[in-house]
Amino acid sequence: MSDIIVPLDVPKEMRDTYIENYNLITGGSGHLMLFAGDQKIEHLNDDFYGEKVPSDDGDPEHLFRIASKGKVGVLAAQLGLITRYGMDYPDVPYLVKLNSKTHLVGVSQKDPLSSQLWDVEQIAAIREEYGVKIAAVGYTIYLGSEFESDMLTQAAQIISDAHYYGLVTVLWIYPRGKAVKEEKDPHLIAGAAGVAACLGSDFVKVNAPKKEGENSAELLKEAVKAAGRTKLVCAGGSTTSEEKFLSELYDQIHVGGACGNATGRNIHQKPLEEAVKFCNAIYAITVEGKSLAEALAILK
Amino acid sequence: MSDIIVPLDVPKEMRDTYIENYNLITGGSGHLMLFAGDQKIEHLNDDFYGEKVPSDDGDPEHLFRIASKGKVGVLAAQLGLITRYGMDYPDVPYLVKLNSKTHLVGVSQKDPLSSQLWDVEQIAAIREEYGVKIAAVGYTIYLGSEFESDMLTQAAQIISDAHYYGLVTVLWIYPRGKAVKEEKDPHLIAGAAGVAACLGSDFVKVNAPKKEGENSAELLKEAVKAAGRTKLVCAGGSTTSEEKFLSELYDQIHVGGACGNATGRNIHQKPLEEAVKFCNAIYAITVEGKSLAEALAILK
Amino acid sequence: MSDIIVPLDVPKEMRDTYIENYNLITGGSGHLMLFAGDQKIEHLNDDFYGEKVPSDDGDPEHLFRIASKGKVGVLAAQLGLITRYGMDYPDVPYLVKLNSKTHLVGVSQKDPLSSQLWDVEQIAAIREEYGVKIAAVGYTIYLGSEFESDMLTQAAQIISDAHYYGLVTVLWIYPRGKAVKEEKDPHLIAGAAGVAACLGSDFVKVNAPKKEGENSAELLKEAVKAAGRTKLVCAGGSTTSEEKFLSELYDQIHVGGACGNATGRNIHQKPLEEAVKFCNAIYAITVEGKSLAEALAILK
Amino acid sequence: MSDIIVPLDVPKEMRDTYIENYNLITGGSGHLMLFAGDQKIEHLNDDFYGEKVPSDDGDPEHLFRIASKGKVGVLAAQLGLITRYGMDYPDVPYLVKLNSKTHLVGVSQKDPLSSQLWDVEQIAAIREEYGVKIAAVGYTIYLGSEFESDMLTQAAQIISDAHYYGLVTVLWIYPRGKAVKEEKDPHLIAGAAGVAACLGSDFVKVNAPKKEGENSAELLKEAVKAAGRTKLVCAGGSTTSEEKFLSELYDQIHVGGACGNATGRNIHQKPLEEAVKFCNAIYAITVEGKSLAEALAILK
Amino acid sequence: MSDIIVPLDVPKEMRDTYIENYNLITGGSGHLMLFAGDQKIEHLNDDFYGEKVPSDDGDPEHLFRIASKGKVGVLAAQLGLITRYGMDYPDVPYLVKLNSKTHLVGVSQKDPLSSQLWDVEQIAAIREEYGVKIAAVGYTIYLGSEFESDMLTQAAQIISDAHYYGLVTVLWIYPRGKAVKEEKDPHLIAGAAGVAACLGSDFVKVNAPKKEGENSAELLKEAVKAAGRTKLVCAGGSTTSEEKFLSELYDQIHVGGACGNATGRNIHQKPLEEAVKFCNAIYAITVEGKSLAEALAILK
Repeated sequence: MSDIIVPLDVPKEMRDTYIENYNLITGGSGHLMLFAGDQKIEHLNDDFYGEKVPSDDGDPEHLFRIASKGKVGVLAAQLGLITRYGMDYPDVPYLVKLNSKTHLVGVSQKDPLSSQLWDVEQIAAIREEYGVKIAAVGYTIYLGSEFESDMLTQAAQIISDAHYYGLVTVLWIYPRGKAVKEEKDPHLIAGAAGVAACLGSDFVKVNAPKKEGENSAELLKEAVKAAGRTKLVCAGGSTTSEEKFLSELYDQIHVGGACGNATGRNIHQKPLEEAVKFCNAIYAITVEGKSLAEALAILK
Repeated sequence: MSDIIVPLDVPKEMRDTYIENYNLITGGSGHLMLFAGDQKIEHLNDDFYGEKVPSDDGDPEHLFRIASKGKVGVLAAQLGLITRYGMDYPDVPYLVKLNSKTHLVGVSQKDPLSSQLWDVEQIAAIREEYGVKIAAVGYTIYLGSEFESDMLTQAAQIISDAHYYGLVTVLWIYPRGKAVKEEKDPHLIAGAAGVAACLGSDFVKVNAPKKEGENSAELLKEAVKAAGRTKLVCAGGSTTSEEKFLSELYDQIHVGGACGNATGRNIHQKPLEEAVKFCNAIYAITVEGKSLAEALAILK
Repeated sequence: MSDIIVPLDVPKEMRDTYIENYNLITGGSGHLMLFAGDQKIEHLNDDFYGEKVPSDDGDPEHLFRIASKGKVGVLAAQLGLITRYGMDYPDVPYLVKLNSKTHLVGVSQKDPLSSQLWDVEQIAAIREEYGVKIAAVGYTIYLGSEFESDMLTQAAQIISDAHYYGLVTVLWIYPRGKAVKEEKDPHLIAGAAGVAACLGSDFVKVNAPKKEGENSAELLKEAVKAAGRTKLVCAGGSTTSEEKFLSELYDQIHVGGACGNATGRNIHQKPLEEAVKFCNAIYAITVEGKSLAEALAILK
Repeated sequence: MSDIIVPLDVPKEMRDTYIENYNLITGGSGHLMLFAGDQKIEHLNDDFYGEKVPSDDGDPEHLFRIASKGKVGVLAAQLGLITRYGMDYPDVPYLVKLNSKTHLVGVSQKDPLSSQLWDVEQIAAIREEYGVKIAAVGYTIYLGSEFESDMLTQAAQIISDAHYYGLVTVLWIYPRGKAVKEEKDPHLIAGAAGVAACLGSDFVKVNAPKKEGENSAELLKEAVKAAGRTKLVCAGGSTTSEEKFLSELYDQIHVGGACGNATGRNIHQKPLEEAVKFCNAIYAITVEGKSLAEALAILK
Repeated sequence: MSDIIVPLDVPKEMRDTYIENYNLITGGSGHLMLFAGDQKIEHLNDDFYGEKVPSDDGDPEHLFRIASKGKVGVLAAQLGLITRYGMDYPDVPYLVKLNSKTHLVGVSQKDPLSSQLWDVEQIAAIREEYGVKIAAVGYTIYLGSEFESDMLTQAAQIISDAHYYGLVTVLWIYPRGKAVKEEKDPHLIAGAAGVAACLGSDFVKVNAPKKEGENSAELLKEAVKAAGRTKLVCAGGSTTSEEKFLSELYDQIHVGGACGNATGRNIHQKPLEEAVKFCNAIYAITVEGKSLAEALAILK
């Protein structure tokens, strides 16, 4: 079991619940393997249909089948999916993604704003009523958007509320808007990580930093340091080869100091069995401390 | 009776109410025949007056007379109409359409925003007080509007609130706004269906997809799949011939996989008796599992 | 006594109060004679001062003196006037106009928005505390304004709240904004009347429709029909000759099917005694079912 | 004691408190001498520092020293000043100015908006807790601003709330914004006065009307009449000679029908002793019914 | 112990708590040494990483290590940092910075708006639950921004709320926006100080005024006077030499009349031991009344 530092906005009587949730989604390792299943609003049906996407992926239940058969820290999805499939997949640990927007309106038309859809209190009530394993909540901030202040405020409140109910929090922070030139600039990513720390989130999900001619895992160090006791996980990004993906993941953790990863398309854009294996490989590196070779062996 | 999967935001003590409402509006079939009587705000008096519209249709009571004499899954209307005619038509099952806007301000002037007019709690209180058969609520989202986030938030809350009171939900989702080029693009319609699933609605009403040279019912499959356990119904659209309408409806259900339909003008822009017959024909296909020929026979 | 259909958002225990208020302001006839005393915000002092305006009219008490000595269905005014004069005019039935704006900012600068100034609950409390005869509330919607959705929402809530307390409602609906070309187009006026029906108002006040070469009273029929069980009253408009006014009023009711009228300037821009007589003449036609000749006789 | 008409939004049990407060700030005369000490936000430090301003005036306590030694109906200031100096000046009657803005953003950049800073309930609680003599509240409306509706709503609520707690109200109403051409046009000022009446304020503070070649006090009559039972007081404006000031004040009251005045810079931009004398002279004319000569004698 | 004037919005039963907090953060001197640790949102990672910044400073815990080993009046930071490090640094007195924004969106794109992230009530609850020494709250206002009214309202409410719970308040007030030409103009800074007084803050943090060819400490006098009983502290600004910094600080207090200082980068952009010494030197001048020479001796 990892040594968990329970933040002070968790009331005394909810400390055990918080620790339980924290251990549940990190497998007691303190490292988070997040399976991102929230793109059906963000990207509409783009990620779930097309030539290179297996037909399984068009049905939302695909996400639940994977999470139920594979090793997954937490399945992140909007509440609606969880309320409609959760009864059939009671063993999956869930993170409710609390805000979402579509990609239809581009930055050149209007800076991004993604608003809170549900209250943490509602989430906690559903958890209580049916025992569904909702262990965490998530929220996206577009830093540098003209609507940044709306999202900072909602994020701050969600973290306070989640901790009040013993839930773990993950912030997705992406610099985006007319004012943002390089979304993956390492120093800017580090700034995003620092914001998560100031807001008191348990985890922050950022894009892997990029800089011409530099190693991304090395570049991550500034951000990991800036995040302080908030743990940093990298977004999986668009689909890539399995080996490249796992190798980069290994480096993010062992070189860059990341405490996990958040992966969507690289998992669900595979037929069920392959997706399950890939989950297990990711989990092996992220949570079980396995080597790259051991993880790759899982895929065979 | 259909096998109903009660979503987890319906509290235990309201499960029976939810199932009762669900069966009421689907005739126990799980398929929804929705009679859309909410255009008096959306289209003002355009649909109810004119050369090709029978004079009956100018009076809002026409909608209630049809719903009372014909077979209708649910009559969708704004609360004001229901509170003023409901006492004389106590056997009609109602869906309260919770938001509406006029078509006066075009997209080129301002992206569409349709705001919530009543709280679900108010609806539930009226239902309780007078036993009026309000079984469902509905809400329209204009996906891709600059005000999308306002509507996503209201929709998410309405669904949670409706389920809390055991009411069934229908989302109307139409991609619209300066950023939307093809409102009926099949892939975009599928995106809309997926959004409804993420928000946890019981039903989603979309426009039938269209693509040059392709069969609309076939095109619907992507959306039906993306909707997952949220059931998809197609909007009836503007007036067309009865045979063409019923034939397309049959295909939407039997080819495309739709679970019903939502029809307005094609019903109410007829004199009472014809409108009643047409309702019955639609109901025959949608809910009673009849063939096209059987449905057409009803019209004679 | 008219046969009153009590809407279903009036709770059972408030039905008697509602009926009492309804009968009070319609003299038991179901027809409404509304004396509009709310222009001091809408038109600032323009209607109350000038060459053709008697000096009496500059003092707000003029409105109360008329309403107290003449036959008036209801005096419509903002709450502030009622709280400050109501104790001296306890027998006048009042309608509290709940929103208002000045005419200083024109449509070419910004589309019109008129916001709610008081809650219905506050109105009900004052009524309860002092027995002042507040029987109704009113609200203006500018249909086709970019702020339409704000006003539709406030109006819907006000109607629900008013009925909850047994108060009668009147909506003023005027199409206005950059998107509106012909504010008095008969078909558009009918659309406005239909919106009032959908919102569940008891009465709707619209401008008399106008179309080159057509009879205004005839044109009104479409709107009266679209309003359904919501009763339609016409705005009095700017000052005109008494005979012309009464003749048009008679036609609005007996030809067009209007259930009353809402008159401001044509009444208060007269010295007290004349104003009282004119009220009585209007009341004779609107509520007492008198002929035009009988009404004109009252003016002598 | 003046004959006070208690408005109907003062609950029965607060009538005595209201009358007490009314008499306190009008010295029982019904006339209000308001010492305006709220410009430190409106004009920042411009009024309190400079060549022609005595150094005393740079310290906010100057306002309290004057109000404590001189005759003052009420000292208007933001809550922060009152909470920090009120314990040392317990005998001064206070009006809490509830909104304020700086003059930094000009009308050509953005129409003026001044938002409510404190709730009336908070004010009432402080009054209750420490017995500080808060007898009234004030609020500014910029009529004709694009944000007019925000301010009309806040003003209406503040008046209702203040009366609920037995507090007296003063509205500052200034026509201002891109749509306003002549802020001091007499007819427009009369419109502003009428708005205050419709909102139910006890007092309204307006700028003295101006028109080429006409007597300002005469011009005031239209506004005084339009205000009805709401009493009108004139703003003191920028610094002028004492004799001219008192002479104009005398005319505003005895010719124009004003019920008081609201003076800031003409008082506090003087050393303490002179300021006190000038207060007393103003008070003599406004509240004590003295002649101009008697008032001027006080200054010696 | 300083003679503390408890403001009247502190309830009687919280006066002792307020005095205790006030004495805690001023060391009983009435002078405030504020260590600003809130820049991780304001400046993202710019202040914490780079060639001239020691690597210690990249980790947020650096701030807590300094505050725990050095003499500090209060450590200002966002709540998230305090909830995650506070349990390990229980002796540090904290100020929760309640709003923050990033510098990504420039003034030329949009005027600055920094919104409230947490309620004072939440802060008070955490304080109560764990005994963490939260003694004060802070908030930034951008005076002259088009969003000024939002921030004035939030600031006013925060001060009322903080005093209600016995917490001390510090306002950061910076004139900024398209309408502001010279952010450090002495007269404008004095205006900002006056605004803080009107809002009732205990302390106001402003930038040191600047004017070509004039002594900054002398220029400060106008602002100190305008602030009245609200105590003024100067922002430390960007990094400078230690001697220059302490000398200017000495003058701000002994010439200008400032009651403290707020220093960030000049402290934390040093390795731990140097940072601690520099804190102690600042504290010596600000709180302990030491001479410049004595303070400089501490650095050796």
